[in-house]
Amino acid sequence: MITLINATNRPENLTGKVVSVYQEILNRLNLENQLFEIAELQDDFVFSASFGKQNAHMEQIIKEKIIPATKFVIISPEYNGSYPGVLKAFLDCVPPKHFVGKRAALVGVASGRAGNLRGMDHLTDVLHHLGVEVLSLKIPISNLNLLINDTGGLTDEETITVLKKQAKKLKAF
Amino acid sequence: MITLINATNRPENLTGKVVSVYQEILNRLNLENQLFEIAELQDDFVFSASFGKQNAHMEQIIKEKIIPATKFVIISPEYNGSYPGVLKAFLDCVPPKHFVGKRAALVGVASGRAGNLRGMDHLTDVLHHLGVEVLSLKIPISNLNLLINDTGGLTDEETITVLKKQAKKLKAF
Amino acid sequence: MITLINATNRPENLTGKVVSVYQEILNRLNLENQLFEIAELQDDFVFSASFGKQNAHMEQIIKEKIIPATKFVIISPEYNGSYPGVLKAFLDCVPPKHFVGKRAALVGVASGRAGNLRGMDHLTDVLHHLGVEVLSLKIPISNLNLLINDTGGLTDEETITVLKKQAKKLKAF
Amino acid sequence: MITLINATNRPENLTGKVVSVYQEILNRLNLENQLFEIAELQDDFVFSASFGKQNAHMEQIIKEKIIPATKFVIISPEYNGSYPGVLKAFLDCVPPKHFVGKRAALVGVASGRAGNLRGMDHLTDVLHHLGVEVLSLKIPISNLNLLINDTGGLTDEETITVLKKQAKKLKAF
Repeated sequence: MITLINATNRPENLTGKVVSVYQEILNRLNLENQLFEIAELQDDFVFSASFGKQNAHMEQIIKEKIIPATKFVIISPEYNGSYPGVLKAFLDCVPPKHFVGKRAALVGVASGRAGNLRGMDHLTDVLHHLGVEVLSLKIPISNLNLLINDTGGLTDEETITVLKKQAKKLKAF
Repeated sequence: MITLINATNRPENLTGKVVSVYQEILNRLNLENQLFEIAELQDDFVFSASFGKQNAHMEQIIKEKIIPATKFVIISPEYNGSYPGVLKAFLDCVPPKHFVGKRAALVGVASGRAGNLRGMDHLTDVLHHLGVEVLSLKIPISNLNLLINDTGGLTDEETITVLKKQAKKLKAF
Repeated sequence: MITLINATNRPENLTGKVVSVYQEILNRLNLENQLFEIAELQDDFVFSASFGKQNAHMEQIIKEKIIPATKFVIISPEYNGSYPGVLKAFLDCVPPKHFVGKRAALVGVASGRAGNLRGMDHLTDVLHHLGVEVLSLKIPISNLNLLINDTGGLTDEETITVLKKQAKKLKAF
Repeated sequence: MITLINATNRPENLTGKVVSVYQEILNRLNLENQLFEIAELQDDFVFSASFGKQNAHMEQIIKEKIIPATKFVIISPEYNGSYPGVLKAFLDCVPPKHFVGKRAALVGVASGRAGNLRGMDHLTDVLHHLGVEVLSLKIPISNLNLLINDTGGLTDEETITVLKKQAKKLKAF
């Protein structure tokens, strides 16, 4: 089971367009997958679900979205030159043992030109610390806003091609 | 005005011991300062105070703790090999313009041996992106739990000496 | 005295075009400066001038280009996703005390799109370790080859504007 | 074939003690391996074997030590807060295609306390850029000088245990 993580809680985020495309790619590769959006989290999770506190909603998410996953695809926009803090805040709420030995592929999304390369580097450091193997091929998507077509979809061929390439590598990883 | 930031919302965190020592050092150097604890934030701030949403409590914090500060001392524990996600989530809620041209000193705190070096590296990247000048001398405090004395205070001479050295450099920075 | 460092030993490197433009900017700001090119180093410096070994040529370079400098501008192309190894090999040959308390501005150069952002991040970590203060404003120059005009010069207005901005900030840093 | 890389050219380096221990571990796991020491490189390699220049010695090394290897163990001391520049200078001399799809395990060595964690982070970024998969379990060896016994050997049980653990993971990676 692959869990696709949309790493932002921004309402109507463009990152979701990339997530949708990726999910379709996984489906076509017959890779069982599910979506987890940071936006699903309870509004007060950084206080109510951390440091050993109980929180039924977080337990449910960990049980459904983290524990059964053997692989993750994490799609992160760039906020202040790195990944969203809320993504790391979520990771900080999960018992580390649930990550050990799993695998991840990273996609960075930015309206600027560097495609959140630095955020993916930082995230790699954190995931490696957690014992998650991270695929070397990371996909930086720059100027995402310019890649969205008139009907709001992401149909840019070049982007889809590199995402497919990564998905296939993740399958074999 | 220097704002000291305690970068965790963990209840009864040990990081606070370092913050207290640092505040006393700043007082003795006659450097005007104030404390801001991430724990003060409203429980739902990552949803209620982000992406342009109004939130009176966050506005108050930005007005009192961020805007008047010309310098910051950020004291961060190590969570999952880097800084707390909740710290970055807070930074992501502040309009970036309020950071430009300011100065910061970083202290890392860990129960392990590397003193959150990586968290300070990551934070440097983010602060530089925001236009904050970061003092090259960063203080990694390892095995903090072993440095706390019987009455719960931090009186380790070596640690206090390096914190004083950093504070003096921040004064001149 | 500002020492401008061209961080590559590639013959006829494009990085030199940026160095020339930067030197002119410093001249117009009446900032005393000199050039140091990694290519000047003796061919065997990584063996003959390291680990305490004597090497008259390296001593001369350290005496003229490093010791008198109070500030550095380091202009680095991107090799294998980071700064050139030869730059770090040079830094490893210089007694660390000659860097302490100095200041640096970083420029990244790439034929790709991220402008050697990662190389500048890595270099910041190293310089901070050495006690060099690093200006937060780092300039990533992407697709440099496309910015060179017919007569081989770098006259791109946007690039020159950001380099000027950085130079002015370095002056005040 | 696993190539063990001793990442320094320092004469009589302590890093070699770790390399020897690691080689014995690989032998006991019946993993075919060979040693490559950066110190073997021709003294002028950064000038004579780079940027497309011919150099019979470098070609020999690439042919014997890089091309046949499917996995690498890179053991790096900490110089100026990161990996040795000479290691990256070597990587910059190898055609990138010879690294794609290979695997690596990283060991950091330091006389200080952080075990070259940052050097391993930086190296991960570079190797990922080159398409090398990097094992998440990286071994930071701190205070190496204190771990060497009276007869000059490395017999510290704890260190050997973690190196064994990494070697087994590399076998399965």
